[in-house]
Amino acid sequence: MPTAFTHRFRDPALRELALRHRSTGARNNERLEFLGDALVGLFAAELLYGRFPDADEGELTRWRARMVNEAALARIARELDLGDQLQLGPGELKSGGFRRDSILADAFEALVGACYLDGGYDACRQAVRAIFETRVDAVTRAQEKDPKTQLQELLQGRGLPLPVYELTASRGADHAKIFDVTCIVAAFDLRCAGSGSSRRMAEQAAAAAALERIAEARHG
Amino acid sequence: MPTAFTHRFRDPALRELALRHRSTGARNNERLEFLGDALVGLFAAELLYGRFPDADEGELTRWRARMVNEAALARIARELDLGDQLQLGPGELKSGGFRRDSILADAFEALVGACYLDGGYDACRQAVRAIFETRVDAVTRAQEKDPKTQLQELLQGRGLPLPVYELTASRGADHAKIFDVTCIVAAFDLRCAGSGSSRRMAEQAAAAAALERIAEARHG
Repeated sequence: MPTAFTHRFRDPALRELALRHRSTGARNNERLEFLGDALVGLFAAELLYGRFPDADEGELTRWRARMVNEAALARIARELDLGDQLQLGPGELKSGGFRRDSILADAFEALVGACYLDGGYDACRQAVRAIFETRVDAVTRAQEKDPKTQLQELLQGRGLPLPVYELTASRGADHAKIFDVTCIVAAFDLRCAGSGSSRRMAEQAAAAAALERIAEARHG
Repeated sequence: MPTAFTHRFRDPALRELALRHRSTGARNNERLEFLGDALVGLFAAELLYGRFPDADEGELTRWRARMVNEAALARIARELDLGDQLQLGPGELKSGGFRRDSILADAFEALVGACYLDGGYDACRQAVRAIFETRVDAVTRAQEKDPKTQLQELLQGRGLPLPVYELTASRGADHAKIFDVTCIVAAFDLRCAGSGSSRRMAEQAAAAAALERIAEARHG
């Protein structure tokens, strides 16, 4: 079934405002996006909460992040053909802003905010849930990414420099070598060790240690 | 008017679950907190959106962060006397967990999640808005913190090392000296210059430049 946003706007001006990028001027979708972002987060949370009574908060948080991240919302926006309906200023038009993930994701959030103002909570919830329902399986069944990828994405997401992996030692006979690697995350002033039977596995272990230390620092 | 959570629970077990910290065992408030966090964020967003039709998205975001941060929610929890009603495991009891901001803020969020499940969206919205309404003025009128404080808090919030300020030059006659300072943020690989008629003002200018660069990196 193709993705559709089922709400019919009583006030078409609200829908139009949701699709006006800030490059068009002062009257744009940024405020609606602020509201829609919170709604999208709630609908995803509620859907996962109800659907997975045995999932713990960590799983729910991870799944929700997959459901509402910029790339995921941009995919929805594309399926709804929001790109074609976007109002962009001349600069963004020229540089292909209607294809950019951030602009598309924001437009979807703004549309959700507009829907809430137009039709109220229940109507908005119904429209968004219908879309999210089709994505629950993909989100909850996706493979966990390996630690090196997770660490890289975490740092990239904050605009921080990437980690450096240094081979510090290799021990043992050729058929049973152990590699020691240090993962250096300058941004967090971290040096974490990892060992494994291949250099790659040692790097994964070191990255996992770094992720843990970063998580500890964040949650105090 | 003293703070009160006006919702009367039909299902008292839900309220009780909201006040069970994870230190008591597997049946605890973490899932409800996950749900409540999203609700609290939405109610704050919606309240600010409606109350300040001329505020831009940046202002709304900043105000909302002040309204729903851990310290602010812990304050609400204290005014609701949630600390006295918390169920804690023996370790947390001994170490005074009922006074800790993070535990109190989580309990308030969990209570909001429980209220949503118990009474539905409108009842929950009403109970939370009544509390937030009394805080709107404080949140929107608070002085902006100075750039050095903002930068320090941003880095501390992510568990990153603090910035270093280096005086690089001072120029001009004694009565009209200009100071040049570099703000070094190792975590972001940043060196930002600032100048001013005192060392302190030059540091503030350099910190402001660093904040701007960090914000640019984040928003792409």
